[in-house]
Amino acid sequence: MLSLVATDLHAVNAVILDRMQSEVPLIPELAGHLIAGGGKRMRPMLTLACARLLDYPGTRHHKLAAAVEFIHTATLLHDDVVDGSGLRRGRRTANIIWGNPASVLVGDFLFSRSFELMVEDGSLKVLRILSHASAVIAEGEVEQLTAQRRLDTTEETYLHIIGAKTAALFAAACRIAPVVAEAGEEAELALEAYGRNLGVAFQLVDDAIDYASDEATMGKGRGDDFRDGKMTLPVILAYARGSDDDREFWRAAIGGDRTSDADLAHAIQLIRGCNALADTAERARQYARRAIDSLATFPSGKAKAALVEAAEFAVARAY
Amino acid sequence: MLSLVATDLHAVNAVILDRMQSEVPLIPELAGHLIAGGGKRMRPMLTLACARLLDYPGTRHHKLAAAVEFIHTATLLHDDVVDGSGLRRGRRTANIIWGNPASVLVGDFLFSRSFELMVEDGSLKVLRILSHASAVIAEGEVEQLTAQRRLDTTEETYLHIIGAKTAALFAAACRIAPVVAEAGEEAELALEAYGRNLGVAFQLVDDAIDYASDEATMGKGRGDDFRDGKMTLPVILAYARGSDDDREFWRAAIGGDRTSDADLAHAIQLIRGCNALADTAERARQYARRAIDSLATFPSGKAKAALVEAAEFAVARAY
Repeated sequence: MLSLVATDLHAVNAVILDRMQSEVPLIPELAGHLIAGGGKRMRPMLTLACARLLDYPGTRHHKLAAAVEFIHTATLLHDDVVDGSGLRRGRRTANIIWGNPASVLVGDFLFSRSFELMVEDGSLKVLRILSHASAVIAEGEVEQLTAQRRLDTTEETYLHIIGAKTAALFAAACRIAPVVAEAGEEAELALEAYGRNLGVAFQLVDDAIDYASDEATMGKGRGDDFRDGKMTLPVILAYARGSDDDREFWRAAIGGDRTSDADLAHAIQLIRGCNALADTAERARQYARRAIDSLATFPSGKAKAALVEAAEFAVARAY
Repeated sequence: MLSLVATDLHAVNAVILDRMQSEVPLIPELAGHLIAGGGKRMRPMLTLACARLLDYPGTRHHKLAAAVEFIHTATLLHDDVVDGSGLRRGRRTANIIWGNPASVLVGDFLFSRSFELMVEDGSLKVLRILSHASAVIAEGEVEQLTAQRRLDTTEETYLHIIGAKTAALFAAACRIAPVVAEAGEEAELALEAYGRNLGVAFQLVDDAIDYASDEATMGKGRGDDFRDGKMTLPVILAYARGSDDDREFWRAAIGGDRTSDADLAHAIQLIRGCNALADTAERARQYARRAIDSLATFPSGKAKAALVEAAEFAVARAY
């Protein structure tokens, strides 16, 4: 994927660096910490790879891919405030270094700037797709907050939440490529489906990894979901499949009364014991397959191979 | 002003109530607390009054005025998180009732929703004006954060901050009326100037009121600016005009070491003693006059009279 879009990604990074500037020095300083700090540019790369798949010859998607990354960065800044996180990608979070107020406000700035970039491009269709995705993301985040520490959260609710907070932006990042390439409604729907399913697979794996080995945590504070009482699929399955004693443990843990390292170790043991981790990964694999199947009508080639590989890689992280 | 736009405002309120809905119940609950809770709808009223001034016969401005109010509401929710405020308009703030995380995320939702409303209207020019205003507001808020507890903040810096955090949205709210009315560039610039000067006047008065009598505080926690170490014009003037002892006091107070009621009373005494409050109000009066002068080329009538009255009223609050 990276070799396919390397030149385009260079152009996107130039837009990102240029447009995160401000005469208020704290803005590029704080935004740069997160933007330069090991982000994988997954969402902009999806826009670029989808444009390549459609043989789009222009450069409009560079600005739009930067807009997508700004929306993503804004949500990360706000997420870390909401969760009180201290680590991301193995580094201290912006809210720890500069405080919550600065993170909230710089997030707002990047969000506004992303809309300025879209307005410069001038496509109302792109603006519709990304403003709607942004509203859905915020709704998903609020729904997740509402479900926090609630053991009665169902797998359906969980899928609804990750569909909104994560998959909506993956879907939008993919869909805007056929819009600028004027590839037609069918291509838009196919690539949106690819992005949405990939996003769900990606989040399922992320949520599994929070209960997996140290090596796989990718710099996130391990056990963060556990201590935050987040109702992710591994917990939902382990609670449903658990004995009365197990459920008693989960009530205390998700309620916030058992958050030690020993409690986390016990939680991992319960989750593994009932195959909840393997089954979460298997669910992810199904979504990745659906993502790949969405590409059926597109011609074979380097771009399609890269998109298939991205879906396979998203799941491979869990194994 | 209210009687001039009452029917339009009714339509705007209907849009606001309709579009703050979500299938996630916490969103309308939290947003409704602030939106229904005694807001004066000052910014949407400006859009409506400016449209009336131009004899705009359509209804497009209803949706756009709602978008402006959503941007304003989103910034209020985030401001209260940033300042740790407990009171607004005499009621407990959303962050106190539902917590900071919910306030951050519902603010994000309202912000996204405001862009969805603008996209539905379909004017790229309006989108450009309001996305730029939103970025400027966020920059102003970050600059204010940077200036907090800094006694070396100048009047110029202060004016730059309030021009961004407050006046930019007043200006945009006014400017979008001639855009939808297709009244031409000259009308756009005149009404933008009206809005910007009115916004500066309004914020100057607001900042004066924080050091005025109890009756005038309008439900804000009195002395909030003082305890937050905000470098508003009354403090900037009092520090510049103060004796060595006075400056010593301001250093401790703005640094956060003197925040008792007695300290606030002493601060008010110093500010009044050097005419800083009266001079802040006088500065506001000059901006209000500039706002009124911006209307010179528009024909007399009820709408113009209402806009003139709004500028006069913004300043009258300080006396």
